[in-house]
Amino acid sequence: MTAPKKVGVQTVAFTSPPVILSTAAIVGAKEGQGPLAQTVDKVVADPYYGEDNWEKAERRMLQESLEKALSKANVKPQDVDYLLAGDLLNQIVSANFAARSLAIPFIGLYGACSTIYQGLAVGAMLIDGGFARYVLIGSSSHYSTAERQYRFPTEQGAQRPLTAQWTVTGAGAILLAAAGVGPRVTHATVGRVIDLGSADPYNMGAAMAPAAANTITSHLSDTGRRVDYYDLFLTGDLGFYGAELLEKLMREYGHDISGRHNDCGLLIFDRERQDVHAGGSGCGCPAVVTSGWLMQQFRERKLNRVLGIGTGALLSPVTTKQGETIPAIGHAVALEA
Amino acid sequence: MTAPKKVGVQTVAFTSPPVILSTAAIVGAKEGQGPLAQTVDKVVADPYYGEDNWEKAERRMLQESLEKALSKANVKPQDVDYLLAGDLLNQIVSANFAARSLAIPFIGLYGACSTIYQGLAVGAMLIDGGFARYVLIGSSSHYSTAERQYRFPTEQGAQRPLTAQWTVTGAGAILLAAAGVGPRVTHATVGRVIDLGSADPYNMGAAMAPAAANTITSHLSDTGRRVDYYDLFLTGDLGFYGAELLEKLMREYGHDISGRHNDCGLLIFDRERQDVHAGGSGCGCPAVVTSGWLMQQFRERKLNRVLGIGTGALLSPVTTKQGETIPAIGHAVALEA
Repeated sequence: MTAPKKVGVQTVAFTSPPVILSTAAIVGAKEGQGPLAQTVDKVVADPYYGEDNWEKAERRMLQESLEKALSKANVKPQDVDYLLAGDLLNQIVSANFAARSLAIPFIGLYGACSTIYQGLAVGAMLIDGGFARYVLIGSSSHYSTAERQYRFPTEQGAQRPLTAQWTVTGAGAILLAAAGVGPRVTHATVGRVIDLGSADPYNMGAAMAPAAANTITSHLSDTGRRVDYYDLFLTGDLGFYGAELLEKLMREYGHDISGRHNDCGLLIFDRERQDVHAGGSGCGCPAVVTSGWLMQQFRERKLNRVLGIGTGALLSPVTTKQGETIPAIGHAVALEA
Repeated sequence: MTAPKKVGVQTVAFTSPPVILSTAAIVGAKEGQGPLAQTVDKVVADPYYGEDNWEKAERRMLQESLEKALSKANVKPQDVDYLLAGDLLNQIVSANFAARSLAIPFIGLYGACSTIYQGLAVGAMLIDGGFARYVLIGSSSHYSTAERQYRFPTEQGAQRPLTAQWTVTGAGAILLAAAGVGPRVTHATVGRVIDLGSADPYNMGAAMAPAAANTITSHLSDTGRRVDYYDLFLTGDLGFYGAELLEKLMREYGHDISGRHNDCGLLIFDRERQDVHAGGSGCGCPAVVTSGWLMQQFRERKLNRVLGIGTGALLSPVTTKQGETIPAIGHAVALEA
């Protein structure tokens, strides 16, 4: 016996697919010099954003992106049933403090860089389940807060291997609604934690690719859809090496997505020109590319059916030092015009 | 216009209230010497639980409690639609690694010490919404992992003020199901983030009490229930000073809960005998008291209607050092025989 809205093993099909009513994206200076600058709402040149530390700058970006998504749809915070948000900072403080300002009932999420897609999956369930009319979803990251917390003082100038990625400074917000005009969330495939034994925190793409492959394969099997059903498989932040590995794994599983796959971490920076090594990463990476570029593609009818797959590496600096490998996850939602 | 299952502003009423099918609780030595020792499944004397560090001990407790809840109900991991879990450690690694072992589609949550109740609220929505038949929920904490991450090396023997609480070593797991025999989750009131300006990380109870009061007041107003509808208002980890403040605030809001209120942080230790200052705290505190003691009270028909309110302080050590006050949250679920 299975739940009424489950299809296959791991996917749910929404009865009244929730609508992406509005989105907002705010990015930092480096992202503003990249190829997607024209798709975001605001580029913030100052890494402190006028605040006295980077952490406050990050949370200000998150809060403003959430407010911007609401104002675009002319929806007030008090009309929103739930805010779902999370970020990379310890105790997800960017999300917690943004939630304090907005005073919307708050469900804190942690899925590392997959958080915006985890939020889309859960948010769509809350709406289609009859518990909400509006769900606001947001996620953020900041190059300097991530470096401070996870790696080395930036002043030290530690050299990183070419497999390393560059944490995106930015925040994205998505307003999901029970009714309205916009791309719809038709299916969600919540991922399992996959760990094939990768232990290198400077090659997260390789650790996350198997999780993305597992979720995409489950989604296709559950829905009976073929690869060519989708115009695009958009992964969150696999970067160059992770994207290559995902396509290889998918071929091994019998699905060739190589002509229909792109990665937010490859889209957001120009790797030739911007010295970001393997590409972008961080919670903000899929959040701003989905909120900005992808929604523009939908508006311009260049894309009509997209499987978005948020990818997250579920390690901590402590687990790495204790010799553990890197568990990873991929959460997928089908977005259809 | 509101969502079909919303009552009042902030509460949902379940159409087919999900059932708590089974629970499991594992605690450490100090908790095993406390008044609730007979209500848990296992007392682990060794703080390392046979592992080579405390973090691995914590995640082993979480994983075993999840497995125990499943085996009690004779449900296999592959039959569970979602695992919802979170903990206090950075990047919720106890939950992430337990999820890796169980291979159940995983939704990582962070609500600090409110996480087990946040999980009950979200899990009940996933089941009543038609997306799941079984949802497994778990949360954990460990005195020594929390001290290492949030405070001082334990070897230093830093003295703490009497308002400080003692982080519970323990893990609790709850298996929610669409059908079966057990207490039912009839309503959920997801909290807003409340911050009345408390900034003392050694008096978390005072920071969290206003959030609990806000959620309880909203719940009573939304449902039209009076205080005497419930046999017990069970808060998560307010401790002595927080519990006192909550009762005072509730009186100011026109509700006298003082004869019907208890706190997991007061129940789990004997404050006279165990030198825990203001009582227990941590994600494990409400998780093991709810999974152990509260379920026993339901089985023995000593309690029939309980409003459980998980409380969480949404700060980080970094925000405290940056001079911020403490945002807090309370998530409530109504449990009815």
